Amino acid sequence: MKVSGRHYRTIWVNEDGWSVDIIDQRWLPHDFRVETVRTVDGIATAIRDMWVRGAPLIGVTAAYGVALRMREDASDASLDAAWETLHATRPTAINLRWALDEMRRVLRPLPVSERAKAAYRRAAEIADEDVELNRGIGRNGLEIIRTIAAKKKPGEPVNILTHCNAGWLATVDYGTATAPIYLATEAGIPIHVYVDETRPRNQGAHLTAWEMAGHGVPHTLIVDNAGGHLMQHGMVDMVIVGTDRTTANGDVCNKIGTYLKALAAKDNGVPFYVGLPSPTIDWTVRDGVKEIPIEERSADEVSLVWGRDEDGKTRQVRISPEATPCGNYAFDVTPARLITGLITERGIADASAEGLARLFPERSGMAA
Amino acid sequence: MKVSGRHYRTIWVNEDGWSVDIIDQRWLPHDFRVETVRTVDGIATAIRDMWVRGAPLIGVTAAYGVALRMREDASDASLDAAWETLHATRPTAINLRWALDEMRRVLRPLPVSERAKAAYRRAAEIADEDVELNRGIGRNGLEIIRTIAAKKKPGEPVNILTHCNAGWLATVDYGTATAPIYLATEAGIPIHVYVDETRPRNQGAHLTAWEMAGHGVPHTLIVDNAGGHLMQHGMVDMVIVGTDRTTANGDVCNKIGTYLKALAAKDNGVPFYVGLPSPTIDWTVRDGVKEIPIEERSADEVSLVWGRDEDGKTRQVRISPEATPCGNYAFDVTPARLITGLITERGIADASAEGLARLFPERSGMAA
Repeated sequence: MKVSGRHYRTIWVNEDGWSVDIIDQRWLPHDFRVETVRTVDGIATAIRDMWVRGAPLIGVTAAYGVALRMREDASDASLDAAWETLHATRPTAINLRWALDEMRRVLRPLPVSERAKAAYRRAAEIADEDVELNRGIGRNGLEIIRTIAAKKKPGEPVNILTHCNAGWLATVDYGTATAPIYLATEAGIPIHVYVDETRPRNQGAHLTAWEMAGHGVPHTLIVDNAGGHLMQHGMVDMVIVGTDRTTANGDVCNKIGTYLKALAAKDNGVPFYVGLPSPTIDWTVRDGVKEIPIEERSADEVSLVWGRDEDGKTRQVRISPEATPCGNYAFDVTPARLITGLITERGIADASAEGLARLFPERSGMAA
Repeated sequence: MKVSGRHYRTIWVNEDGWSVDIIDQRWLPHDFRVETVRTVDGIATAIRDMWVRGAPLIGVTAAYGVALRMREDASDASLDAAWETLHATRPTAINLRWALDEMRRVLRPLPVSERAKAAYRRAAEIADEDVELNRGIGRNGLEIIRTIAAKKKPGEPVNILTHCNAGWLATVDYGTATAPIYLATEAGIPIHVYVDETRPRNQGAHLTAWEMAGHGVPHTLIVDNAGGHLMQHGMVDMVIVGTDRTTANGDVCNKIGTYLKALAAKDNGVPFYVGLPSPTIDWTVRDGVKEIPIEERSADEVSLVWGRDEDGKTRQVRISPEATPCGNYAFDVTPARLITGLITERGIADASAEGLARLFPERSGMAA
């Protein structure tokens, strides 16, 4: 999407035709930095140290890592080594593993001399497939926004609340939860976004706010506590969030706090949607609350905060006393009953086993 | 309550018999500082600059401000001047005004020579009345905790979630929401408290965590987003919060985010209680969501955060870019239908017009 008026993806091949440019997201929202990466080790660092983040983007970045490696040495041993190096960066990331397996599946049968070219081609396809997936979510979500906008007075914005960052920065472009917002903006529908702060770490909010500012979407940053009040007072027309994992029943595991917003939406008759690329559906899991283990993370994420001091220096401060014990749960599960619909690339599904099975009949058998 | 093993109130007469000692809460939770105040202007500063906070404590502090003034000059003009000086510090604080009116009502009819002594006496009574009010809430809430504890295995703690600080620091002693926790602890019932971070400002959480640490109550600081997840997983036995204002119907206006926790409690069958000193009931208001205007505060409270840097220096950092617009709503309203009970000094009321009228028959007519 746009940054200072120019269109960017999060990753692309440099104009030299082979090295890989990525937005180094560690410096956002304060600095916009693009880094040129020329080796598989450079890509491994970018993934491991979170220059890039978001499951789809991590997969695409890894695919380009394989391509860089093939350019230097396209032997089987080199292909396997690239797989190992890249897989070790985030061993639990499902998209990462999928992309690496896919690259190896495509490249292995080819003559060594053809592998580099084929690797760039397949990496580009995976990137484009991600963009198309998100554009599909965007097109389907746009129709919902259009219906809400039709009931508004001319010029009155559709107010959308989102939690964390399921934006274009987590994908190659468009994002999942944000794709409908960008397509609506491009369609000339006035939008205003409430951006949840998304404690701990706050990263999601600041990335989303940065995205909105870059693309010219009016927005307001609010603390996570504020959404209920806004919904009680008719200030939110719809909620759209992303998902880290969706069960075959339609339960959605997403950044901690999503569940509380879904409760408030339900209580106030505000539609609550999830932008859902179908690869994040886990067809082997049914009851999200019972079956999905929730990662507990470092207490430091609660007690330490990054910011800029009065001299413009970025620094970390401790906001709670060192002796205070902190709990840090990374995700929660929003039960399907609270979700108005799952906006997928194929259409909008009811958040239920039946709803998902209707849109994805070829996959839904897996959960039986 | 206890700080490092010694019992404190938030305000008391110094051992010299006339000057007033207060805990300067601006330095908490990092430093525990007691200041001795000797003039009405000193008291005005302490209230205006938030050395003390919490409606009940502000009222008592103002009463002692009048006493300090009477000691110097007990004339009618001096009494009126003290009223004006102190009222101007927080002109919208209802307890402050009530305490000042009460002091004037008691002192004005007395001979000038008797006013100073009477002022100290009445200020001490107001302080003791606050403590008694909170002990009443504590005794009634203790019975609820006792019932929950009876169903636990021996030694297993009762898990209580609280939001913001309705603790002893906001009162003279015991606090409102915390009084049942302290009395349960004194009764030997094991308690563990989940302390909500309470964004923006975080002040409430850090004060509550500091209180719990001082009194030896096990506790865990969590982000505001985490409560729903904890309740889904049976990790919270009850919620107790305070209230800034309660309507005659039992709707509760409290720190922003309280409503979201009440929704989660309802959704998971977790009892949700409010520690409610009856003076905070506003008998003239019925529908809290419709009738109570919610203060919007400075965006700086969202975008700036205080903490300690690596050198131990307390400093402020900006956590969101200067260009990001922020919204800051201070309170929300929890509808009575989500509240299990209002723990008052007289007993536990249903959160309804009938429930409150039954406990406070002499007042409930005002709302007719």
